[in-house]
Amino acid sequence: MKTPSSLTVLTDSLRRLPGIGPKTAQRMAYHLLQHDRDAAADLSQSLAKALDTIRHCALCNTFTEQVVCETCQDSQRDHTQLCVVESPSDQVMIEQTLTFKGLYFVLMGRLSPLDGIGPRDIHLEKLITRATDGVVSEVVLATNFTNEGEATAHYISETLKARGLKVSRLARGVPVGGELEYVDAGTIARAMLDRRTT
Amino acid sequence: MKTPSSLTVLTDSLRRLPGIGPKTAQRMAYHLLQHDRDAAADLSQSLAKALDTIRHCALCNTFTEQVVCETCQDSQRDHTQLCVVESPSDQVMIEQTLTFKGLYFVLMGRLSPLDGIGPRDIHLEKLITRATDGVVSEVVLATNFTNEGEATAHYISETLKARGLKVSRLARGVPVGGELEYVDAGTIARAMLDRRTT
Ligand SMILES: [Zn+2]
Ligand SMILES: [Zn+2]
Repeated sequence: MKTPSSLTVLTDSLRRLPGIGPKTAQRMAYHLLQHDRDAAADLSQSLAKALDTIRHCALCNTFTEQVVCETCQDSQRDHTQLCVVESPSDQVMIEQTLTFKGLYFVLMGRLSPLDGIGPRDIHLEKLITRATDGVVSEVVLATNFTNEGEATAHYISETLKARGLKVSRLARGVPVGGELEYVDAGTIARAMLDRRTT
Repeated sequence: MKTPSSLTVLTDSLRRLPGIGPKTAQRMAYHLLQHDRDAAADLSQSLAKALDTIRHCALCNTFTEQVVCETCQDSQRDHTQLCVVESPSDQVMIEQTLTFKGLYFVLMGRLSPLDGIGPRDIHLEKLITRATDGVVSEVVLATNFTNEGEATAHYISETLKARGLKVSRLARGVPVGGELEYVDAGTIARAMLDRRTT
């Protein structure tokens, strides 16, 4: 019994999606061909279109269909403040807080030596060029508070401070609404060290 | 801040894959565009190719690139025996046992009234036509031993017996290597009822 070759090829292609194993890929292929050919055609076209049109913003490095994205073109924003995030979704989260009116730089990753992800992969040269444009006066590091995110922030901080820039980091502490009883000791320790005069 | 439209479209398309939620779809889209454009191009082309070439075997209903699949064309097989399975992967499992030398019919699903999946969706008319070709003398039901698989087997059994065909079902019982202590009571009860003289 032979599986049709174009079905095998499709299953193999689906396996290249992050987090998709062989069983799931096969189930997806069967589902698409049997029950949802519209979705398959739609996905085929969306992938081709995105590959054709999506590039990285020349200034902030995020995904865009233009040379410079709309955020970077917005003259209402504070061009002296530059917030560094790991991904476009982190930028969306910060935008939702309405607490930052400056511009962004999107690393599209984080330093992870064990996975072979170094400074080049997070576009550090592009960030340095962007941050030293003479207009930016403060760089706010908003990478995640994971080990890798912290290491990334530290590395960028050292690099940019060496070039005379003011660099800050989002505050760590007890989450809003957090009950101390349910917050981990490391977070409480950090909140104690970073305590503010009221 | 606006997400580029072709990125939104791609994320929406990925969400149409079974079991993929909005967060996963977004992570996949970022990953493909940032780290694996080859995989994205590959998937786009595989989907288009499969949609173009994959059809259902005129005889057994499985996926094939021909009018009649290779298994159905195999003259070495016993054309009097027809094994009914839910999916191509079930057929692969049975083939691996080397215990069945007949032909197959692949339902591409199972009856599931609650999900609106009725006899038409499992190609029952096509199965009846196939099973009553005058050559098939026994139909072996190898749908899953789930509630839906059992209901499907029962429905097909009644339909085909009414047309004078011999219909059998894979035996239920204690799995090979199974320790009674760890087998559920329903399985043991069934094994007791179906006990065989040795
Ligand atoms: Zn930009
Ligand atoms: Zn066939």
